[in-house]
Amino acid sequence: MSEEKVLIKDKGSVRLILLNRPRKKNAVDIEMYSMIGKAIATADSDINIKVIVLSGTGSMFSSGNDLNNFGTALSSGQSLDQVAEQGRIMLQDFVRTIVLCSKILIAAVNGDGVGIMFTLLPLFDLVFCVHGAKFNAPFSRLGQTPEGCSTFTFPRIFGTSRATEILMLGDKVGVDEAKDQGIISQVLEPENLLQYALKVAENLTMLQQTSILETKRLTGWDKQTLLKVNDEECRVLKERWQSPECLEAVTKFLTEKINSKL
Amino acid sequence: MSEEKVLIKDKGSVRLILLNRPRKKNAVDIEMYSMIGKAIATADSDINIKVIVLSGTGSMFSSGNDLNNFGTALSSGQSLDQVAEQGRIMLQDFVRTIVLCSKILIAAVNGDGVGIMFTLLPLFDLVFCVHGAKFNAPFSRLGQTPEGCSTFTFPRIFGTSRATEILMLGDKVGVDEAKDQGIISQVLEPENLLQYALKVAENLTMLQQTSILETKRLTGWDKQTLLKVNDEECRVLKERWQSPECLEAVTKFLTEKINSKL
Amino acid sequence: MSEEKVLIKDKGSVRLILLNRPRKKNAVDIEMYSMIGKAIATADSDINIKVIVLSGTGSMFSSGNDLNNFGTALSSGQSLDQVAEQGRIMLQDFVRTIVLCSKILIAAVNGDGVGIMFTLLPLFDLVFCVHGAKFNAPFSRLGQTPEGCSTFTFPRIFGTSRATEILMLGDKVGVDEAKDQGIISQVLEPENLLQYALKVAENLTMLQQTSILETKRLTGWDKQTLLKVNDEECRVLKERWQSPECLEAVTKFLTEKINSKL
Repeated sequence: MSEEKVLIKDKGSVRLILLNRPRKKNAVDIEMYSMIGKAIATADSDINIKVIVLSGTGSMFSSGNDLNNFGTALSSGQSLDQVAEQGRIMLQDFVRTIVLCSKILIAAVNGDGVGIMFTLLPLFDLVFCVHGAKFNAPFSRLGQTPEGCSTFTFPRIFGTSRATEILMLGDKVGVDEAKDQGIISQVLEPENLLQYALKVAENLTMLQQTSILETKRLTGWDKQTLLKVNDEECRVLKERWQSPECLEAVTKFLTEKINSKL
Repeated sequence: MSEEKVLIKDKGSVRLILLNRPRKKNAVDIEMYSMIGKAIATADSDINIKVIVLSGTGSMFSSGNDLNNFGTALSSGQSLDQVAEQGRIMLQDFVRTIVLCSKILIAAVNGDGVGIMFTLLPLFDLVFCVHGAKFNAPFSRLGQTPEGCSTFTFPRIFGTSRATEILMLGDKVGVDEAKDQGIISQVLEPENLLQYALKVAENLTMLQQTSILETKRLTGWDKQTLLKVNDEECRVLKERWQSPECLEAVTKFLTEKINSKL
Repeated sequence: MSEEKVLIKDKGSVRLILLNRPRKKNAVDIEMYSMIGKAIATADSDINIKVIVLSGTGSMFSSGNDLNNFGTALSSGQSLDQVAEQGRIMLQDFVRTIVLCSKILIAAVNGDGVGIMFTLLPLFDLVFCVHGAKFNAPFSRLGQTPEGCSTFTFPRIFGTSRATEILMLGDKVGVDEAKDQGIISQVLEPENLLQYALKVAENLTMLQQTSILETKRLTGWDKQTLLKVNDEECRVLKERWQSPECLEAVTKFLTEKINSKL
């Protein structure tokens, strides 16, 4: 079980989902998207699960979308259009599952987060993070566009100007800025993070559940908009993935990565 | 007049509404909801009144909804459904009156605020507060759900994660955090608060009124959404009030309160 | 060319628009609205221009709408209604051009900004500003109402209470507050401001353009609302401009200005 790329552990009525690919900086490959999405969706429909906690093993939360996903899919002999369409559906479903989840979602961010694993943090009900963590979303460098509903949430959270710096210029965001702006509500020492998140999760399970679930439902005034945002972001990303510029940028990135290891 | 639970004083074109039940921590009972709502509504339709200031006597702003409201109504022989429906209408009308008020509403928060008297602060045009004040919304502990449009306003003001801590976990919010996040714009010494609020009110009455009223009207882009939010929050609360869990939590709270006085 | 009230310089694929009326504190007269709007609109449709930078010469960014616009137009023999209608169309088109611009808009705010040149800053993709700059929007003092979509953007940025202080009471906002609240993302020394803005603009031109333009388009979820807000703000302003109170306030302001020069 400990060799799974995603660990799923239920304790009482709390489901813990752990990104467990530390040697690859918890980069999310196709299989992991599916595993995480399924773990959230099944928890959502399981009356025994009340709270879901997402975290990672190792010192990094996640380096985001595994760029090898492209290569792996393409080398299987499918057309670029097929690969891009599969990627679109996979990402759209993944984000959709998070937006639609009716149970309480807690992110226990155990280190730096990149791309999708940064942009979707505002979709969680509670986000706790370790001191010193940094986030960035290097979309434009790779010829891509933002996802995770960040084109909607980030300008509202950071203001338009700072959101542009983050989403277009790829500026890094420190945990303190993320807390000041309201993405993260608690910053903790690494050794206390998961324990704290699980304690809060347990506290939530002991509160009157209809009250908790109705409060979550009531705060979801943007849910329909977020679904629309997600659809449109994924539609545009599919186009980007098929563009020569994106393919060139991704190929260059992967080549540099390979060369740096030689 | 000074024994009234709500004092209403007109001075020039400013209406001052004072919660005046300090021995009960300015808890709002059924009669007070009606008095405050009526004082705001009649000011709104009175061409001689231009600004409305709400504050409280004593060292606390308000402990929120008087939980004895339930017991009082039930002991009158009405059914639980009737009592819950009356509560729903009362709360819905109260918040609706504030959302729809076309005159400038100033809250001069003279101390701690709990529940509804915390959650509705974002609906005021100006909120001034004394140093050291704390706020909390212990809904889930009582098997209830948030009101005052806070399921809409709080995630936008505090960010989703912090809003969850406040609305679900019952976390306290200090005046400095409330100011940083934009609910409160000025923090003052207790001895200066009301004087300052009345001075600002007076200044507003001396500005060109069509300009002021049109500015207020123009900034109300969320008004229709807020009315919908209020309706839905009150509909859910009525259900909660009729649930065994809520009745149990409220009974337990009241019993503890009685015992602590023995 | 250097005597033009608005300087327009294209360098590579960056268009620099400079308010160049420093002796009048870069107050925007009718001609300048037209020149700036046209410079943005033509850049937007020019495939060679990728980024637009707006800044000012001298130590002030802009004192806002030139109140002499009224007098100039009225002295030409037109009716008050005609003058107000022309003003409405001019302002509406100007703000509309900025809202609709598909290219990246950078404001390099070289000093204090007043009225429209403060209120429209949230419509820019990036806003950089010099240390020590102050902003204010003295609408109510002149019997006017807010524009530049600030009745929508300011409550979301500053919170309702602070937005009321700024838009109704005319409170000044310092650059640090504007940065904390998310209007401005970088504060720089005056000697570095324009160089920094042009460097960021150049960096943006070197990124994959479809990615950049799609990111801008995707973040524009409020675009239709902003157009509606602009229309309504301008409709109300036209009424205000024709009111005796506004005419009196503007006349008084201009008279005081003339007298202070005698």
